[in-house]
This record gives sequence, structure tokens and C-alpha cells, in this order.
Amino acid sequence: MQKTRTLTTEIHKHVGERVRVQGWLQSWRQLGSIHFLVIRDGWGQIQAVAESEAEIAPLIEAEAGVESLVAIEGLVESVPQAPGGIELHNLAIELIEPIRETPPFPINKRKINAQLSTLLDHAVITHRHPTRRAVLRLSSVLSQAFRESVLTRGFTEIHTPKILGTTTEGGANVFKLDYFGRPAYLAQSPQLYKQIMVGVFERVFEVGPVFRAEEHDSTRHLNEYVSLDVEMGFIENHFTIMALLRDILADIIGAFQEHCAPELELLKANLPVVPAEIPHIHFQDAQELILKLHKVDVRGEPDLSPQDERWLGEWAMKEFGSDFLYVAGYPTKKRPFYTHTDPERPEYTNSFDLLFRGLELVTGGQRLHRYADYLEALQSRNMSMEPFEHYLEAFRYGMPPHGGFAIGSERLLMQLLGAPNVRLTTTFPRDMHRLVP
Amino acid sequence: MQKTRTLTTEIHKHVGERVRVQGWLQSWRQLGSIHFLVIRDGWGQIQAVAESEAEIAPLIEAEAGVESLVAIEGLVESVPQAPGGIELHNLAIELIEPIRETPPFPINKRKINAQLSTLLDHAVITHRHPTRRAVLRLSSVLSQAFRESVLTRGFTEIHTPKILGTTTEGGANVFKLDYFGRPAYLAQSPQLYKQIMVGVFERVFEVGPVFRAEEHDSTRHLNEYVSLDVEMGFIENHFTIMALLRDILADIIGAFQEHCAPELELLKANLPVVPAEIPHIHFQDAQELILKLHKVDVRGEPDLSPQDERWLGEWAMKEFGSDFLYVAGYPTKKRPFYTHTDPERPEYTNSFDLLFRGLELVTGGQRLHRYADYLEALQSRNMSMEPFEHYLEAFRYGMPPHGGFAIGSERLLMQLLGAPNVRLTTTFPRDMHRLVP
Repeated sequence: MQKTRTLTTEIHKHVGERVRVQGWLQSWRQLGSIHFLVIRDGWGQIQAVAESEAEIAPLIEAEAGVESLVAIEGLVESVPQAPGGIELHNLAIELIEPIRETPPFPINKRKINAQLSTLLDHAVITHRHPTRRAVLRLSSVLSQAFRESVLTRGFTEIHTPKILGTTTEGGANVFKLDYFGRPAYLAQSPQLYKQIMVGVFERVFEVGPVFRAEEHDSTRHLNEYVSLDVEMGFIENHFTIMALLRDILADIIGAFQEHCAPELELLKANLPVVPAEIPHIHFQDAQELILKLHKVDVRGEPDLSPQDERWLGEWAMKEFGSDFLYVAGYPTKKRPFYTHTDPERPEYTNSFDLLFRGLELVTGGQRLHRYADYLEALQSRNMSMEPFEHYLEAFRYGMPPHGGFAIGSERLLMQLLGAPNVRLTTTFPRDMHRLVP
Repeated sequence: MQKTRTLTTEIHKHVGERVRVQGWLQSWRQLGSIHFLVIRDGWGQIQAVAESEAEIAPLIEAEAGVESLVAIEGLVESVPQAPGGIELHNLAIELIEPIRETPPFPINKRKINAQLSTLLDHAVITHRHPTRRAVLRLSSVLSQAFRESVLTRGFTEIHTPKILGTTTEGGANVFKLDYFGRPAYLAQSPQLYKQIMVGVFERVFEVGPVFRAEEHDSTRHLNEYVSLDVEMGFIENHFTIMALLRDILADIIGAFQEHCAPELELLKANLPVVPAEIPHIHFQDAQELILKLHKVDVRGEPDLSPQDERWLGEWAMKEFGSDFLYVAGYPTKKRPFYTHTDPERPEYTNSFDLLFRGLELVTGGQRLHRYADYLEALQSRNMSMEPFEHYLEAFRYGMPPHGGFAIGSERLLMQLLGAPNVRLTTTFPRDMHRLVP
């Protein structure tokens, strides 16, 4: 067989011709004297039908099982009842690598029948299942769509360091490491670096890992995740950032619809519509609304509870028909020191959370941009200036009003797909108990 | 002033019109009664000329210095002797934020006059200089061009964990950290993970940070850098990978030429031509060649010295007119355990180095793909299987012949630009002595 290889996703263009495919023997069923093989390659799969044992002799002779590596040449026939409407006939098989061990659980059934911990322990194999591949393909498209969206808006990509000499957002929840005998920390976010780089390129973004030593053991926390970060200069206030986030989300969902129709169908994903303008409510008004609608007085609380968020999500759907709702103006005492306060009401900030179906999805806002404001903010929180000395230099020499946000890639995917656990939206999750594979 | 903002890169489309620009006051010179201002925004700069002090009254009144944030409205005039051929006249200035402190060294001269350590200590400000912006813009375009190149070739992006429960490539040179009371390690490369993911998507890539605790204090080593990683299944041997790398490099250089002409000119960069086929020489033949040409017998040495590499680079230029040369077939004992040996000569491997102008630029090769071969390779090196248990699972259940490579983004940029120090090709370098900014 010297024929050029055809990818499974290209076979439909060759009906009536002979093609050569390569891949994994995903399944092998026998019905009477007929053998149905499914070959999976990196992009899709194809059914190959052998009318006789002679056609599949190399597999039988080598006692090759599922996941064996094979090359199959066959005639492409249009068969309406076949998966995808095409299949291969009159086969010639070359066995590239026989596999005789059986995977720890079947990875060729419609659903994977295994507990979450088993799935994760064997992620190396689990990811070969079509549903896992679909999720990870969506994750890949998500990063790409995010980058394309911001690049068309004039943003410059930056790569900021992940090993830091100081903690970015306070000392808690940070992984410590030994850096040539000195203490160092893993970046909890690129926050201060992306702000600094606004002083260089005005609009910057980064897609990269962040590390949180949080002792959460929940379905929606990871200790290492991919953060999609944006920071933009010369804004009016946080509403500029909220409009930007809306457009980026619409681009991401548009990219899913354009490039991932088969994956979305397989996962039965019900993607939301991003309204032309996402409705917003002030934090204080949200608390008043909860009192009015649910007779629960949360006024004065510095943050919203998960129940509050669900109520607000319901309200946004009923009132605006929107899956999304911005809550803006969170109290100053609950937000980090770099958050810009509301010039009219300094006990509130120019920051926001984006709720999606009643769950927090993205946090963002306007940042302080004056050196003197930073000194005051640190002082009022009894924080030392010293660890921030280098970062503050950017503000001494001119920074425009700016702001941004960070999207947790895995959590966004989890919520868009309605996945039950964030661990299922990444390749090899890291949690309090899991460091392998 | 309510006019919409025009970016500096768009002003040339508005000759004869009034536009509003926003940015930093990069410089302010006075010649007689005329004031020349240069405004820098995130993408470029523009000269604005004031015929009288009245036009710049807000700057004078506030005693605003360089790096102040300003908005300037002015009439766009075509002036051949002006930088870029256009400048603004009849100005109306709005001072957004006055700056009265002077930067630690001038960042508005043609060249930055400061020592490397000063540049790096004040990187936060240094990066605002046009030459620094040009380098960092090229770095951004490099990542983007790499991704575009591999995406058009059917590669899928992956995000692999950076905190590991085991070391990927042996215990030396790895940063250790405390992971909820357990030891963990920072990834030295995504090597084993990208191989695993070949079992899922066949062709995968990652752009992400890697961490090397190497005690090098040289001009070309960083302890944290951005690795451009590729891994591809169903290859013939390492020559498939060498052809792929050639095409990706050509795409990257093509993208620089297409998108970065002003930056390349500013940096006086002399980009190489990537030949249609990069010449190659076997490691053993390279040693014989050195004996023949330079009467130095390095035969039997397990690796090439920097001097050997320079000689080979000179030879490639003389013999093929090529800046690039592949040396293939490095000895087995100097390559990591996952390297595929040469089936004909097991003391050599199917691996390669790409030399660029006599310096190592990229390392890659074919990897082992059979489970039994991994067991043998680990055993023959007296390495324990146990830390690799999870990774080896991928090979138990069928992996195609595969290979790949990793490009150090900063080092590639350093060599393409002829920069004197790799620390100058990144935002905030990490070396043995530097953890800030």
C-alpha cells in the first residue's frame, strides 16, 4: 500500500474511489460472517466493512484488539444507514502495531461507564473517547476564538512570568517554591503584569496557566487553570470593559457554532445567546431587589451568596430573557487593592461580576491608575508598599484609566456545556488530591 | 473635545481632517517659539507641532512632563520631512494625567543609554521605548505565527499541567514546590503530556511556560521561558519532523516580513532565508568532516561542542549557502530515554538539532512508541518505571510512530534578531539572580 493517506474528515469527498486511512481500531464487531470495524484518527472516525475473514486476516493472525494501530485501504461507498453516511468496502489492511491488552474500561461505547476518579486516573486513555475528544477540542477552539477576538480589536499578546518574587494578590492561597535557595511564589494571576503592559501596548492579553493554592474541594475549583486575561487602557470606566467582554463572549460562542457543530451535537450542548447588550444591575440595587422579591434582607452583606446569584439569574431571565447578567459596583472592602472605587460612592467600586444562569462566570473592572491612589489604597488596607515597589513604578510614570477581566477557561467551558464537574473540561486536572497523571 | 479617538497608525488616512489622538507625551522639544510634541499610543507615534504657547497651555500650567497622559486634537498635514510624513497642527490639548517625575533614564532617545541591569530593574518603564516595544511586538507575532502555522496543518492546541507529581526528564534542574504538604515539581517541558495527547488528536501543540532550575548564568539561558511545542503522529521517522519544522520556521519568518516591517527596520534585523530544504548531515559524518576540515579529532565525543557547531555552521554556509543546518543521529547515550534509536545503528538516535548560524536553535526527533521499548529504555538507564506509570499507560494501548520538537521562543527571537542577550527578548526575565520585576 503506497497510497497517500486520507484523513477521516476528508473521506466523503472520495465516494467511488479507493482511499487509505490510518488510525486506531476503535471497535470491531462481528455480525454473522461480516465484520464491522471503526477506525479513529486524530480528527474523526470511519466505519470499514469486511465481507470475509480474508480481508481482515492481518488482524486475526496477530490477535490484534481494539486500539491497535492500522492502515486500511478501501472503496468509499455512500451508505445512508452508516454513521456519517459513508463506509469503506473491499478492504486491504496493514497492521502497524497490534494491541492485545484491553483498556481498563471500554472506550468505544456511546457513554463511558466509569466513576469520575477512574476516568481521571486513566485520563491518558479516557481522552480517546469521542465525548472526551469533543470537550477537549472545544477547549482548544475556545483559546483560539478568544485570541482571534482580541487580536482583531488591536490587543497585543504578552507572556508574563509565572515565578514571582512577591505575591500578587496577598499572601494566602499561593504556592511557595524554592528558587535557588530563595522563597518564590507561583503567579495567582498575571494581574499586575498585564496592568504594567497597558503602559506599553495599551491593550494586552494573555492565555496562560495560573496557580491557586485554595483548599477548595468542590466541583468547580481547580488549583491550576488556564486564565484568559485582558487589560485595556483609555477606558471610560468599567462599562467599557463590560461591553468588550460581551463582544468577546459573543465571538467565542460564534466560533463554537461555526467550527464545532459535531462536537456540540455529540455533547448535546445548548449554547446561550449573548444579548446585544447584557443587562446590568448595581450591587446595592441587587440586594434591594432580593429583599423585594424574596423577603430576604441581605443589605449590608459585602458579597452575594450563591443563593443571591441564583435569584438574580432567575430575575434576569424573567425580566430580560437573558442568560447573562452583570452585577456592577461591588463593595470596596471585598475587592482587591487595585480596584477603582466609584468616584461618586467610594464605598462601592467600578468592578463587576458576570453571572451566567445564576453562577459567577467572570470578574473584572476598572483599576486604579494614579500612583497616589495606589499608595492610599495600600495604606488604608495596612498593606506594605515594599513588595509592590517595582510594579508601582509603572504608575509613577503615567498610566491611563484602564481595566480588564480574567476568564477561567475551564469554568467557562463547564458552564457553557453544562458539565457536572470542572475536572471534565481539562486534560489533566490538578486538585488538592490529584497531581497525576 | 468629543471627537472619536484615532489611533496613531490610522492618522495617515485623515490628511486634511482634524483628528483626536490619545497617549503618552513621549517628548517635548522647543525650537524658538515652536513646540514639537511626540505622542505615543499603544501602536505607534505622531508628531504634533504647536506654533504658540497658547496651544499647549494645559501642559505648561500643570508643569506636565514626559509620559503625561494627553489627548490632542489637531489638523493632519502632510509634511515630507516629519517622521512618518505627517504631523498635527492647530492643536487643542486636554491633559488627562500630568506626570512631573522624570523617568530613571531617558526613554525618548533613539537608543536607551543604560546598562543591562538598569534596563531590567526598570523593565516596567524600559518597555515603553520604541526599540523595546518592537522586540516585544515581534515576540507576540512569533507566538501567533507559530500557532497559525500549525493550526493550518491540522494540529490541536492543548494545555498541559505545569505542576507535576513527578519529574518529566529526570530529577536534576527541576524546581520543587510544596503542594498541600506533598512534594511537587514545575514542568521542565510538556514532553510526556504532548506525547500522550498524540494518542488523542495525533497532532498537538502548546505555547506555554516551562521551568528549568539550571544554574547557568549565561547570555542565552533563562530559568523560565516560553516553549513552542509540537508533537505529531503517524510519521515516517525524524525526517518527517525536520520537514515540518522547516515549514513552520518559514511561516514564522514570513509573518515577520508581512506584519513587522517597521519593527524589523527599527531593530536593523537581517532575517534569514529558510531554504526549500534545509541541508542535513549525520552526527558521525559531522565529526568526520571536522577532522577532515580542521584536523581536530572529535570522533567518539557524545555531543558537539560550541566550536564544532560554529565550524558546521560555516560549512553549511559555504557548501549550501544556508544559515540553517540539521545535524541528525545524535548518540543514544546523550539523549533522553524516550528518544527513538536508529533501527540500523542503535548507538545513534532518530533525533536532530537544528543549527542556525552555527548555534543550536531547536532540538527534536522521533520518540519511542512501543510500550516494550519504553520498559527496555528505562531499564537500560537504570531508571525506575514507577514515576512514569501513568504516562506509560498511553503506550500500552496503542501509539503510532511519532515525534516532535520544542522551540524556545526567546532564544529563537534572540538569534533571528541577533540580540546580544536572551533577557532582552522577553518581558520580565527570570534568571538565577532575578525574580523581579
